[in-house]
Amino acid sequence: MFAARIEKLAESPVREILKLIDQPGMISFAGGLPATECFPVFDFSHLQTDLLQYGPSEGERALRLQIAESLCKRGLETSADRVLVLSGSQQGIDLVAKLMIEPGVRVAVETPTYLAALQAFDLFGAQYTDFNIAEPSVGNTRLTYAIPTFQNPTGHCYSVSQREALADACGQAGSVLFEDDPYRELAYGDCDRTPVCSYLQNSPWIYQSSFSKTYAPGLRLGYLACSESLYAPLVRLKQAADLHSCRLSQHLILRLLRSEKDDRDLTAFYRTRRDNFQKALIKEFSHLADWEVPLGGLFFWLKLKPEFATDTRQLLQRSIAEGVAFMPGEAFYPKGYETPATLRLNFSHASAAQAVLGLAKLAKIIATSVEGRV
Amino acid sequence: MFAARIEKLAESPVREILKLIDQPGMISFAGGLPATECFPVFDFSHLQTDLLQYGPSEGERALRLQIAESLCKRGLETSADRVLVLSGSQQGIDLVAKLMIEPGVRVAVETPTYLAALQAFDLFGAQYTDFNIAEPSVGNTRLTYAIPTFQNPTGHCYSVSQREALADACGQAGSVLFEDDPYRELAYGDCDRTPVCSYLQNSPWIYQSSFSKTYAPGLRLGYLACSESLYAPLVRLKQAADLHSCRLSQHLILRLLRSEKDDRDLTAFYRTRRDNFQKALIKEFSHLADWEVPLGGLFFWLKLKPEFATDTRQLLQRSIAEGVAFMPGEAFYPKGYETPATLRLNFSHASAAQAVLGLAKLAKIIATSVEGRV
Repeated sequence: MFAARIEKLAESPVREILKLIDQPGMISFAGGLPATECFPVFDFSHLQTDLLQYGPSEGERALRLQIAESLCKRGLETSADRVLVLSGSQQGIDLVAKLMIEPGVRVAVETPTYLAALQAFDLFGAQYTDFNIAEPSVGNTRLTYAIPTFQNPTGHCYSVSQREALADACGQAGSVLFEDDPYRELAYGDCDRTPVCSYLQNSPWIYQSSFSKTYAPGLRLGYLACSESLYAPLVRLKQAADLHSCRLSQHLILRLLRSEKDDRDLTAFYRTRRDNFQKALIKEFSHLADWEVPLGGLFFWLKLKPEFATDTRQLLQRSIAEGVAFMPGEAFYPKGYETPATLRLNFSHASAAQAVLGLAKLAKIIATSVEGRV
Repeated sequence: MFAARIEKLAESPVREILKLIDQPGMISFAGGLPATECFPVFDFSHLQTDLLQYGPSEGERALRLQIAESLCKRGLETSADRVLVLSGSQQGIDLVAKLMIEPGVRVAVETPTYLAALQAFDLFGAQYTDFNIAEPSVGNTRLTYAIPTFQNPTGHCYSVSQREALADACGQAGSVLFEDDPYRELAYGDCDRTPVCSYLQNSPWIYQSSFSKTYAPGLRLGYLACSESLYAPLVRLKQAADLHSCRLSQHLILRLLRSEKDDRDLTAFYRTRRDNFQKALIKEFSHLADWEVPLGGLFFWLKLKPEFATDTRQLLQRSIAEGVAFMPGEAFYPKGYETPATLRLNFSHASAAQAVLGLAKLAKIIATSVEGRV
């Protein structure tokens, strides 16, 4: 009864976990949830009745102008005519998958990479080639999907030479670069964040970002910009997907982008959370795992030491039963890949006290699970 | 570079027309725009910060309960556990297309039918079987898409026996019924509006509707309910498409659904517009076309008389140049179908004075285009 692609439609581990953890007292390191304390104060007073009518598929013109200006500032020369407002950046992944992927098409990805991108690409029949960030080769792929700035899940930020190398590799292979950049504003240290797309010469590209991490995910708003030849079909795909994005969300975000005053110091807030998390990690996980301190984004990526290595999916049920949720690293690899024993831990959502408590519990679960095995 | 499906991604005539007509003074009978005067007054004062966080893919629980209750009242027994909130009902079409359509799959459709459904089905490689509403046969199709209540574009409302016949046909053929019901609240006369899905015995179904016509399209909110076996994959497809729908929109609509007082008399307002439009049509179009007065919905469907028959797409450019937009009927047929000379005229958006003026202009254009031909 179903199309063949539905066989590839795996349950999303994130969604399943988010369901389980929606209960009082749960300490969650699982999702990529921004801290509720950091949401801006929205001003609803200016909303006009004409926003209630149908709007353009491309998005509100004024918002697209604002986005284009911001893209130019970060080094990506573009104009509002090539900006498409999205109902969250997950939609960008869906649209690009529809545009480019059919059974057998190869997509170059970082391994690990964003699991919901794999989920959307899988649906359309993608096969994967993983590339080495240090010496990327993306030959024989139609599309290259990368998160160069504060990668999800690893937190890695590409160096300038890594950015150049990826751009070169895409250009040489004729692989369309799809750069996903939702975390760029959450930078806690010095690092180059120039979009890799801006290094491309004549090679086609799609760049997307989101307002979910800096403003509010509940509004479901993101955007993409792309090279000229890709814009018209992406707009049509957007129209067939949902006609256009919520106009209230668009105007609320536009108002904030235009406003001079934003008293929130997001990076200071998250940097403190990261630092507290790092302290707790050192205390609880030094004997269990290795990791790097992320320069930005929302996640720590832990590799369990060989003596504690285990399929972390097996730990999840017990962990949730004990009130701590995390994301098993296996979910971030294409199916069939050999997956090291890894965990993604979100540090932005839990309070400092919760983080300490939750990490202590989690460390104990990992240590005892191995003991049980021996 | 693109997936093969992109060859089938036609420009949407609606979108192209809507772009052209977004200029002062244009009288538009083209879109399906509700009257701006009819939008409700939204109360933004109750919006809570927690709505800004990520939410469940299925939609807000309280809204799903409210929708399920309303579905039961209209004769479709279901529960909140089988209700999925959508980012407008266009998204339902996209999700169902992903679920069921792959190249070569046959879909039974009314001809004419909603053009953006054809657009989404085309993208996934659908082939079409048209069925006769009076004696439907949908054999050899995987999916049957129908708009039984105030059909778009014809305005037709199925009789009880036509509803039963369609349900029987789907049951016998094992074709999943996808019932699209966005116009049901806009009823200006007596007619049965029981969902055809409620007549099905053990046959799978998907029923969807929208808040765009009764509340506000700019919020992009709709919903579907479906038989049990279809729910889990549709939720996963929704998650891969946009994670979840805008939570502000969901709460604004929920608030209105719960509120006892809705002073707007939408049906009276639109009935008056329809009646005025009918008067103007009689005056200007009696010699040019035949039509029925729609019992509900937003459209008149005009069939040009044989002596004035012409491909109405050829008239559009001149018509827009003279300040009147309409929707050529050809767009509502699958590609390759023989299309009679028809026009879809929206009566809800233009004021009475605009309607009179616009119809006079349009009649003149049609009459003179034929004269020019002879």
